[in-house]
Amino acid sequence: MKQPIRVAIAGYGNLGRGVEAALGQSPDMRLVGVFSRRDPAGARLLDGSVPVYAMADVEQYQHEVDVMILCGGSKTDLPEQSPYLAQFFNIVDSFDTHAKVNEHHSALDQAAKKSGHLAMLSGGWDPGLFSLNRLFGEAILPQGETYTFWGKGLSQGHSDAVRRVPGVKKAVQYTQPSETAIERVRSGEQPALSTREKHTRECYVVLNEGAEASAVRESIVTMPDYFADYDTEVHFIDEAMFDRDHVAMPHGGFVIRSAVTGDNNRQTIEYSLNLGSNPEFTASVLVAYARAVYRLVSAGETGARTVFDIAPGLLSPKDPAQLREELL
Amino acid sequence: MKQPIRVAIAGYGNLGRGVEAALGQSPDMRLVGVFSRRDPAGARLLDGSVPVYAMADVEQYQHEVDVMILCGGSKTDLPEQSPYLAQFFNIVDSFDTHAKVNEHHSALDQAAKKSGHLAMLSGGWDPGLFSLNRLFGEAILPQGETYTFWGKGLSQGHSDAVRRVPGVKKAVQYTQPSETAIERVRSGEQPALSTREKHTRECYVVLNEGAEASAVRESIVTMPDYFADYDTEVHFIDEAMFDRDHVAMPHGGFVIRSAVTGDNNRQTIEYSLNLGSNPEFTASVLVAYARAVYRLVSAGETGARTVFDIAPGLLSPKDPAQLREELL
Repeated sequence: MKQPIRVAIAGYGNLGRGVEAALGQSPDMRLVGVFSRRDPAGARLLDGSVPVYAMADVEQYQHEVDVMILCGGSKTDLPEQSPYLAQFFNIVDSFDTHAKVNEHHSALDQAAKKSGHLAMLSGGWDPGLFSLNRLFGEAILPQGETYTFWGKGLSQGHSDAVRRVPGVKKAVQYTQPSETAIERVRSGEQPALSTREKHTRECYVVLNEGAEASAVRESIVTMPDYFADYDTEVHFIDEAMFDRDHVAMPHGGFVIRSAVTGDNNRQTIEYSLNLGSNPEFTASVLVAYARAVYRLVSAGETGARTVFDIAPGLLSPKDPAQLREELL
Repeated sequence: MKQPIRVAIAGYGNLGRGVEAALGQSPDMRLVGVFSRRDPAGARLLDGSVPVYAMADVEQYQHEVDVMILCGGSKTDLPEQSPYLAQFFNIVDSFDTHAKVNEHHSALDQAAKKSGHLAMLSGGWDPGLFSLNRLFGEAILPQGETYTFWGKGLSQGHSDAVRRVPGVKKAVQYTQPSETAIERVRSGEQPALSTREKHTRECYVVLNEGAEASAVRESIVTMPDYFADYDTEVHFIDEAMFDRDHVAMPHGGFVIRSAVTGDNNRQTIEYSLNLGSNPEFTASVLVAYARAVYRLVSAGETGARTVFDIAPGLLSPKDPAQLREELL
C-alpha cells in the first residue's frame, strides 16, 4: 500500500473547510495540518484530530507536507502568500484576478524554480475548468465565438473583495447571467456581447457601526478588475437579515463555443456547472490538482503551472492503463 | 514566421475530408498530401493542388510529413494501419473500439518507441472529449455517478461496422438517447441504468443484389462490442430512399457527473455537444491533437499517448503566456 499524499491547508475559511471535506473523499490523500493566521486554538475542524498550527511557524513543517493548498483570497492574501510559501512547499492556489495572472505566474515560477518546488496557480472552476473549456473550444473550433456566463450564484472572490472594503462587516456578491443574452447565444447567433450585457453583480452588505453607506458603495462599484466594468447594485441590510438569507453558497454557469466547420456546418460545445456549494466544488478541484502536482513533483518537475499545463490523467488516482480501460 | 506543421491524411473518406476542411481553418498547419488505397487519380480533394499518393508508396514520404492523421475505420483499418504507419510517422488516429483500446495502445507504444515517433490514439469526441469529461468528473467529484448519452445522431464507427457486413451496399446507424433516462439523471437521482436502458441503435441498410436480409440482420445485431449489448433495429430500404434521407451526419450527446460533496451538497457537471457534422467535428479534434503531437515530438517525446496524457495548452496555437492572459 502506497503512503497517502500528505496535504496541508493554509487558511481555514469556507474554501479551507471545503478542502478538508474533499480530502475526506480521497483515500489516497491525508490532511496533515492546517495553518492559520488566527489563534490556532480557535479553529474548529471537521476532524478534531488534525493539528492546527500558527502560520508564523509554517517553515518548520516544510519536510512534513507534500502539497500545501492555499485557501486565502486573491486580492491581498495570495499575491504575498503564494510566492512566500512556494519557497518551502509545493503549492496549489486559486488566484482569480484575471488581469494579474501573468504577474502572479512569474512571481511563483521564480520562487518555485529557485527552491525546487512546483506551484500550481489559479485552480478551481473559473479560473480553472471554465478556462480549460474556453481553450478546448477555440483550439478545436477556430472559427467561432466563446461565451462564458456565471450564475446565478455567490462569487467567493468578489464577496471577499467587498468584505475588504473599510466599513464593511459582512458581505456577499451574487452574479446574475442575463437570460436574453443566453437565449441569443444558444440560438447560434454568435452575438457581440459586452461584459455589462452578459451579467449584473448584486452585493448585500452589513456595515460596521459608524460606517458611511455612500462611501462604501462608491468603493465597491469603482473597484478595478472586480466591479468597475459591471452594472453593480449594492444593498445595505442588517445583520439578522444577512444571517438568515445569505449563508448558502450556490453557484454555476456555463461556457459555450458556437462555431462552424467545413461548408457552414454549425457545431456547439456547452459546458455547464450547477453547484450546491461553490467553495466545496472549488476545493474539490484544488484537491484533484494537488494530486497532479504531487505526481509532477515525483517526476522531477519544478516551476509554475496552470490547468493548461497539466495532463488530465494526472488528476485521477487511477493508473494510465486503468483510465484507458474504464474511461476512454 | 514559423514554418507550418506539415500534415498528411491517410484515408480520404468523410473523416479525411473533414480533416482537410479543419486544416483549412488552421493557418499554422499545412496539408502536404493524402494517401489512399484507392486509385489516387480518383480522389477529389477540396483543394485540387494537394497531391494524392498511393498508400503503397507511403514510406517514401516519411521525411516530408510532421504528423500523419489516420482516417480509416477502427474495425479493420486502424488495428493494422496505425502500428504500421507509426514505424515511419508521428500519427494521430481515432480508434474507437473501447474494448480493445489497451491492446491498440500497446501495439502503438511498441512501434512508436522503436522508431522514435509519437502515436496518439483514440482522438475525437468519444473516445476523446467525452473521455476527458468522464475523467474530470470522477477525479474532481469522487462520490457520484457519471452518465454518457449519445445522439440522436449518426455514429461513424457503427455505420462503418455495418457496412463491412457481407451483403451490405450502404448503411447508416443512428444512436438514440432515452428521454426517460436523461430526465432521471438531470433530476440528480443517480439511477443505475444499463446500456440498453440508456440508448437504442437504429440501422438503415441497402442490400447488395442477392443478399439475404435475415442473415445480414443477424450479423449486425449479434456483432460484439458494437451491437450485441443494445436493442438494435435494422431497416432495409432502397438506394434512392437512402440517398435522399440518410446523407446528413449530425450527432451529439452529453456526459453528466452527478455527485455530492461535504454535507450532502449536490454538484453537477454537464458537457454537451450539438454537432451539425460529426465527421467534421471529429476531424477538428484530430487536427488540434496533431498540433499537440508535433509539440511533444519537438520536445523529444516518443511512444503512445491518449487525450489523458496530453496537456490541454498544447492544443492551441497560442503560447502559454498568451493563453493565461486571454483564456485563464
